[in-house]
Amino acid sequence: MAFVRNAWYVASWASELERSLKRQTILGEDVVLFRTQDGIPVALRDRCPHRLLPLSRGALIGDTVRCGYHGLVFDSAGTCVHVPGQDVIPPNARVKTYPLAERLGLIWIWMGDPDKADETEIYDLAEYHQPGWGVAYGDALHVKADYLLLCDNLCDPSHVEYVHPTTLGSPGSEGGAVTFEGRDWGVATNRWSLESEPIGFAKAFGNFADRVDRWQYYYMYMPSIAIIDFGTAPAGTGAPEGNLENAIRVFSCHFLTPETETSCHDYWLHVRNFGADDPAIGEGISEQFRIAFAEDKVVLEDIQREEDRFEGGIRVGLDLDASAALFRRKIDQTIKAEA
Amino acid sequence: MAFVRNAWYVASWASELERSLKRQTILGEDVVLFRTQDGIPVALRDRCPHRLLPLSRGALIGDTVRCGYHGLVFDSAGTCVHVPGQDVIPPNARVKTYPLAERLGLIWIWMGDPDKADETEIYDLAEYHQPGWGVAYGDALHVKADYLLLCDNLCDPSHVEYVHPTTLGSPGSEGGAVTFEGRDWGVATNRWSLESEPIGFAKAFGNFADRVDRWQYYYMYMPSIAIIDFGTAPAGTGAPEGNLENAIRVFSCHFLTPETETSCHDYWLHVRNFGADDPAIGEGISEQFRIAFAEDKVVLEDIQREEDRFEGGIRVGLDLDASAALFRRKIDQTIKAEA
Amino acid sequence: MAFVRNAWYVASWASELERSLKRQTILGEDVVLFRTQDGIPVALRDRCPHRLLPLSRGALIGDTVRCGYHGLVFDSAGTCVHVPGQDVIPPNARVKTYPLAERLGLIWIWMGDPDKADETEIYDLAEYHQPGWGVAYGDALHVKADYLLLCDNLCDPSHVEYVHPTTLGSPGSEGGAVTFEGRDWGVATNRWSLESEPIGFAKAFGNFADRVDRWQYYYMYMPSIAIIDFGTAPAGTGAPEGNLENAIRVFSCHFLTPETETSCHDYWLHVRNFGADDPAIGEGISEQFRIAFAEDKVVLEDIQREEDRFEGGIRVGLDLDASAALFRRKIDQTIKAEA
Repeated sequence: MAFVRNAWYVASWASELERSLKRQTILGEDVVLFRTQDGIPVALRDRCPHRLLPLSRGALIGDTVRCGYHGLVFDSAGTCVHVPGQDVIPPNARVKTYPLAERLGLIWIWMGDPDKADETEIYDLAEYHQPGWGVAYGDALHVKADYLLLCDNLCDPSHVEYVHPTTLGSPGSEGGAVTFEGRDWGVATNRWSLESEPIGFAKAFGNFADRVDRWQYYYMYMPSIAIIDFGTAPAGTGAPEGNLENAIRVFSCHFLTPETETSCHDYWLHVRNFGADDPAIGEGISEQFRIAFAEDKVVLEDIQREEDRFEGGIRVGLDLDASAALFRRKIDQTIKAEA
Repeated sequence: MAFVRNAWYVASWASELERSLKRQTILGEDVVLFRTQDGIPVALRDRCPHRLLPLSRGALIGDTVRCGYHGLVFDSAGTCVHVPGQDVIPPNARVKTYPLAERLGLIWIWMGDPDKADETEIYDLAEYHQPGWGVAYGDALHVKADYLLLCDNLCDPSHVEYVHPTTLGSPGSEGGAVTFEGRDWGVATNRWSLESEPIGFAKAFGNFADRVDRWQYYYMYMPSIAIIDFGTAPAGTGAPEGNLENAIRVFSCHFLTPETETSCHDYWLHVRNFGADDPAIGEGISEQFRIAFAEDKVVLEDIQREEDRFEGGIRVGLDLDASAALFRRKIDQTIKAEA
Repeated sequence: MAFVRNAWYVASWASELERSLKRQTILGEDVVLFRTQDGIPVALRDRCPHRLLPLSRGALIGDTVRCGYHGLVFDSAGTCVHVPGQDVIPPNARVKTYPLAERLGLIWIWMGDPDKADETEIYDLAEYHQPGWGVAYGDALHVKADYLLLCDNLCDPSHVEYVHPTTLGSPGSEGGAVTFEGRDWGVATNRWSLESEPIGFAKAFGNFADRVDRWQYYYMYMPSIAIIDFGTAPAGTGAPEGNLENAIRVFSCHFLTPETETSCHDYWLHVRNFGADDPAIGEGISEQFRIAFAEDKVVLEDIQREEDRFEGGIRVGLDLDASAALFRRKIDQTIKAEA
């Protein structure tokens, strides 16, 4: 399977990693995750090298994992430290380990060359840490589609009018012009819709009724992190020039982790500049997002099914594809460079 | 997939095609069907040429279909008439259309060369339109088997004693001799069972108790329409010579539409010469047919499963196969002639 | 599919073979089983050579089977004795038959060369027939795993501490040393755990509370019969030397029948030297075994899934594999010798 390997992917919510064995499939590899007695997260290949039983079927004993079939014990470095019934441990009795880190309420895993793992390269969002901003955690949405189909979607502000008419889009409007540019880290795409109807989200959370200026900035980071900075201000109050005084603003953050070539998890959370201390507002936003992301899921799973059975034929390219196409080229180049 | 393409197949019950988008898979192609504001049936390839999303996921707006992902609009001729965010419509932004027609309460679709579509060639049954005859519509039975396995079955009067002992067959009898002959349009197979026990159907609807003369004429039209003319008369009253005065007679009509190479729909209806104005009698017949066709479905799906895993070995040919074998040869010749 | 064919496999519980048609898949072949009017068990290939319909969909009429599609009749020798609608029976209208025998409450089938079938070679257990011993029949456990993965398991006393901690194993103990030796008929593996904690089973059925001597003898007969002789005696009373006066002893018998290359049935029963006349004790033992065998099923189905997707990589061999490896070599040799 062709994935960017030298990258940090999200393996779990930090809050869901406990003193128990958790199996997760990432880039096609089965991984077992747990925390040590000191709370340090650990990830091992989830397969006993003896009979292939997933280690997650076994037991967490102290900081070691004991296989559920014959009792082989592996420490958190992946070394077999005990084999029942024999004194000499075979030298190849080891399982692969993966560098992990904890940031933004997430457990991050490095699936590539361990020597290249550098925690300082993990994505961070300044507003996540700043006073006046409220954070809410969403779900780990499972989507039966190639994560690149989600990346296409997350480079593409123009789908919201059609896929999310009641929440994030403004039905009947086609929004403003979309522009984009490549960056070292990926692709930035944006759209301003000036003097426009407020979307459902802005009506619900900002009490906007009159004309508004609204924006969407889609930051698509390689290989699979999308940060959508979107918001709404009263029309003509200078939002495009930077005056966000009366604006509501949300960072919708998607951390995509490929599971297989045709499925992935979308760990999503969001950061808002209003009602920062009121969890009910955070949950209210999450409820709107759940509606919207379920709409994306239907579309993307349908497309995956059609791609799987596509026997050739006409494919039409549109202007709105350019941003996603640039992102895919960057992914391809990175995979080639790793090879 | 090898199918006869230059032919009219049934795509839907006419009554089920409305002002909404209906997806149907026919000869392996996904088609979206709808009626225009004037009630004209329209069929388009159910796949947006941009991202492959099924158009049936989108919206019917006037006489056009709008894709549910990016809002491309296609008219009923399959031409893209609008692309949000750009003025120039790519010339290859088109979807295939299919000729349609409405007859016998059914929507007919032409999957082949549109220039060859001729509505006058659509199958018709005179009695369907005649006074004194009652029509009742059945179901669109889905069968997970090659439609040709159904055609075999529908060239074959001799299976009814074994598969349909309580309804259409007479258990313990083997019926009369089967004869058949090839015709331009397919194969006609028939059997008279003289001086025989009435079948369950004849007891239920004709109050026959004594010996009867009964007939089955199986008309198998290419590529996949079967009309079974069957009936019962008191024994010795001259039915074989054409005197049907005291006979009950039913045309059981099967319009088969291949979905894939190993699945199909059987749209069935029937036309009777008794109780023409009493819908309860029509429904009573349908109930008997539902029992019988469910019996066929079990047999044919079993056979499909066995065919799928058949690793070679003995196949026994019988005299009763000759009619179905002739029909299959005609189908093969037609497919070759089309290629 | 590579199986040992010249061998007796279990096809059914004797009590479940009646005057009806029973379909069973054995070594990848579909077989239909029934008893004649005289109670003789019969097995035919479960596929009509005409249209491939499973004969088990048809009817048992006297000592013959009538196909459910066109009424072909086969006798218990597999010969077609009637074809409706024609006088001459095609000479190739035959189905394969299989030698059968009834022993130990089981129906045994010979899947190989019929000329080599010798009923005297069917496995027997002396204690099954002896006074003072109680027999109880278990289930036909279906496991979605290669039967050889079960054989591995049944050559391997050392898994019980980890897979069956509450029933057959002693958690926290690793048991005594395992020894094994090849025999003409397969492999014998055993382990004595002296001066040890009684296992849950011994506590439940033998009221053992103090230290005990316990044994496991695993007799793995080719191709797929495992007899586990296990028991418990008060420590130091001479059990290893043969004094079983105060011991409880059970023969746990597994008759494995491959269904496909990756699934099988495990017909299991057991024979005990205590409470011989009390069926409740037999059922109590079965309940313990059901817990234990369900634990094996989880492990073995997991391993089969991992084997199916194993893309290569490190496999660690342990001392405890030697017995199972010897058994697999014997199976391979037998399959090669048959070819």
